[in-house]
Amino acid sequence: MLNLKSSTAPWWLETVETHLEEVLVDHAHCEKKAAGTALNLIFHYVDKLPLIRELTPIVNEELAHFQLVLDLLEERGMTFRRLVPSSYGRKLNDLVRKNEPQRAIDRLLVAALIEARSCERFQLLRDRLKDQKLAHFYGSLYASEARHHATYVNLARLFDRDGTEVDRRLDELASAEAAIIDEGDDLARVHS
Amino acid sequence: MLNLKSSTAPWWLETVETHLEEVLVDHAHCEKKAAGTALNLIFHYVDKLPLIRELTPIVNEELAHFQLVLDLLEERGMTFRRLVPSSYGRKLNDLVRKNEPQRAIDRLLVAALIEARSCERFQLLRDRLKDQKLAHFYGSLYASEARHHATYVNLARLFDRDGTEVDRRLDELASAEAAIIDEGDDLARVHS
Repeated sequence: MLNLKSSTAPWWLETVETHLEEVLVDHAHCEKKAAGTALNLIFHYVDKLPLIRELTPIVNEELAHFQLVLDLLEERGMTFRRLVPSSYGRKLNDLVRKNEPQRAIDRLLVAALIEARSCERFQLLRDRLKDQKLAHFYGSLYASEARHHATYVNLARLFDRDGTEVDRRLDELASAEAAIIDEGDDLARVHS
Repeated sequence: MLNLKSSTAPWWLETVETHLEEVLVDHAHCEKKAAGTALNLIFHYVDKLPLIRELTPIVNEELAHFQLVLDLLEERGMTFRRLVPSSYGRKLNDLVRKNEPQRAIDRLLVAALIEARSCERFQLLRDRLKDQKLAHFYGSLYASEARHHATYVNLARLFDRDGTEVDRRLDELASAEAAIIDEGDDLARVHS
């Protein structure tokens, strides 16, 4: 259902436990960026009313999550601050093709895969984090990531002229995503 | 309270009545752009937590209004589409100073003035539009524009080191805004 081609390796969970503040600050940035991605798509594809209708509540939800993570940081005496992002988003965005409608399909599928990976990792945090309060927090978030994943894949179909491109390209991009996750990142991040 | 230095001239109301579809489509774009402006400010000033906290609900409200205007267009059989914007926003943004913290103050005050002008015009539409349903619609929107205006002015004060800059600059920018409105625009728009 999440269309992912790999599972997160155990080392990532250790990274979260040992670099919690950094990962939580990065998580806040991820929610903010997710809101920005949805709003950029609305700006770009103004002639696609179903896309606007579906993405507007996603902007709101991402911003609500952003606020929740800011609350969490505040409760724990952690400071929201600028942070160098992981290379994950950039590497995925580099795969987006330049011409429409392929570009629209790729932007939506990349967004779908980021939501899917977040969902997979949030479930892991729910099940495995020693900090029960935090585990519960991630348990409350993962379902909407799954929903967003499905929405993005469906929206990509709006641009799929022959009806076969989305599934083919999703398979291709999911393989690339798994390889990027496998490469990893030196930084402790949500998507490293 | 709105800090405007002029009242909208009667010709603008005539433009709205004679170019209703164009103005409504432009209004949808204005709500979308207002959401984008608030989100851009959140992205840019991540170290100012009060700004993030105040602007996040504004993004949501602007998007809710965007949806309401899209509903209105749909009900009336009008199509949301790309539209050349009025020169109003560009002319105001040209006045934003380049260096921080002056840049932050100006971006927030320009946003405040755009909200103020929208508020003034929405009140006019509420009071004077012949179409009662539409008059009622604008009556339901103008109060939040006034609230956003006040929020933006207050947020500018976060960047005001000596505590006198915001009032001085607001006075200056409000004069410029009145002059820009006085120049007008050949296009039938919310801010022409």
